[in-house]
Amino acid sequence: MHKQIAFLGLGMMGGPMTANLARSGLQVMAWNRTSDRPGVEIAASAGAQVVSSIQEAVSSAEVIFTCVGDVPDVEAVILGPEGAAAFAQPGTLVVDMSTIGPVAARKIGAELQQRQLRFLDAPISGGDIGAQKGTLVIMVGGDEQDFTECKPLFEIMGKTIRLCGPVGSGQAVKLCNQVLCAVNIMSLCEAIKLAEQQEIDPMLMVEVCSKGAAGSWALSNLGPKIADADLAPGFAIKHLLKDLRLVRESLQSSGQILPGMDMADRFLQIVKELDGGIGGELGTQAMIRAYREGGS
Amino acid sequence: MHKQIAFLGLGMMGGPMTANLARSGLQVMAWNRTSDRPGVEIAASAGAQVVSSIQEAVSSAEVIFTCVGDVPDVEAVILGPEGAAAFAQPGTLVVDMSTIGPVAARKIGAELQQRQLRFLDAPISGGDIGAQKGTLVIMVGGDEQDFTECKPLFEIMGKTIRLCGPVGSGQAVKLCNQVLCAVNIMSLCEAIKLAEQQEIDPMLMVEVCSKGAAGSWALSNLGPKIADADLAPGFAIKHLLKDLRLVRESLQSSGQILPGMDMADRFLQIVKELDGGIGGELGTQAMIRAYREGGS
Repeated sequence: MHKQIAFLGLGMMGGPMTANLARSGLQVMAWNRTSDRPGVEIAASAGAQVVSSIQEAVSSAEVIFTCVGDVPDVEAVILGPEGAAAFAQPGTLVVDMSTIGPVAARKIGAELQQRQLRFLDAPISGGDIGAQKGTLVIMVGGDEQDFTECKPLFEIMGKTIRLCGPVGSGQAVKLCNQVLCAVNIMSLCEAIKLAEQQEIDPMLMVEVCSKGAAGSWALSNLGPKIADADLAPGFAIKHLLKDLRLVRESLQSSGQILPGMDMADRFLQIVKELDGGIGGELGTQAMIRAYREGGS
Repeated sequence: MHKQIAFLGLGMMGGPMTANLARSGLQVMAWNRTSDRPGVEIAASAGAQVVSSIQEAVSSAEVIFTCVGDVPDVEAVILGPEGAAAFAQPGTLVVDMSTIGPVAARKIGAELQQRQLRFLDAPISGGDIGAQKGTLVIMVGGDEQDFTECKPLFEIMGKTIRLCGPVGSGQAVKLCNQVLCAVNIMSLCEAIKLAEQQEIDPMLMVEVCSKGAAGSWALSNLGPKIADADLAPGFAIKHLLKDLRLVRESLQSSGQILPGMDMADRFLQIVKELDGGIGGELGTQAMIRAYREGGS
């Protein structure tokens, strides 16, 4: 197994993932764009060495993980003038765990290949709790050999780890995952709305329905939050909206549409505009506010 | 516990539910409108005594269960001239396990009360498998005393048993359950469509996504069926369409709409019209055909 790891991006996900790698005895050099974030502290206190430049983090790394935000962030951190590719040793394996869609992943993979670097796309699902507990789902795209080499590291961070196909395939499966999440949340919101309309306690409805054919992760995990009026983010609306944008981009050339997803997207957009435009910071379960305040 | 039970309606659900009651040592008199159905054989071979009239089934029953189809069927079986109420002993507990919506349940409950009979609405979820295994979710509306009296019988048929409120409340929760089911199936269909569009094996997508925040009963149970092109009914589209009609009826007075549910309903209607108008006999997972053949 590799000993020398770089981890770039210490957010809600990257912070605890880095901590799990460090705790398992690996030498982890960690970097974040801004240093005063909870994830930086989480990584550092688990034994990761937090450094102030990407160059310092990656120069002697055997594997470089990135877990940042949207496509331009990933491109900057990997391909930018001060990015990982500029300082990594030839042959190093770069593993991006952000959600950026298959198009961007294939582009980055091709560019890294030209620079004698290897690439896996490996987006994740399971939320901040999954990152902390090391129970993430990790959807990987790339060469089988690179996947096999990296698998022991993935197993420290996740529980369900699957090679889905060539570079971009992890992203493709992740986009399916996000469509499921978005539409399942819409499903939950409509059931809550119907319960309230019929004078049924939403929490009772959530408890009962989660045991049968109506059950879902969204119902069991986000349903109680809505019933408790807890709209704080596990996963923020702005991030899910970004992911749904990537779905549309991935479908663009086909002319295909997904009407249920588009409807969920519209409800999330409505909530994003609330509270003077900062509604996107709320958790995805805040979609319920579109049903309550959006006039539907 | 009651010893003498009547069970009216021996379909895909009622047949195995009656069988479970009979197997637990109760005397069950069972009746079905047509005698040449698999559920009749299932009930009989478990020891239920299948009789040819409702009168014969209910005359000496302490509890009368009904599990039939749509509202007119339930009304005929309970309130019709040859129905259960005409022949039941005063004070008998009538328990309807069909899905008929809260409006019809309250109407039947009021009418039975006038005839000195007691009533619980107790619709179920969990499919034919749940009926066979005795693991159904049973959502009950009615008086607490009647519920407590009937609970040992419910426990033979189901695993999750909840009193949800006064008569009609079980139906109200069941309608929430059906909204969740319908929209979760739409979610599944869109993820399958997106997987195929991106050249991802749908079964792989189903397996991976079911482990994380995108998970649902629909994904885990109906996803593999779609991937295998198995569109046979566990639960038929025509039945789910009936239930969604009941949701609209329940919402009618409020003017409320549930746009996600309405969209799922439209997709199911499209499939119902396929194959010369018999598409409604297919399982609910056949909604995928609306995405493939409906031009969307």
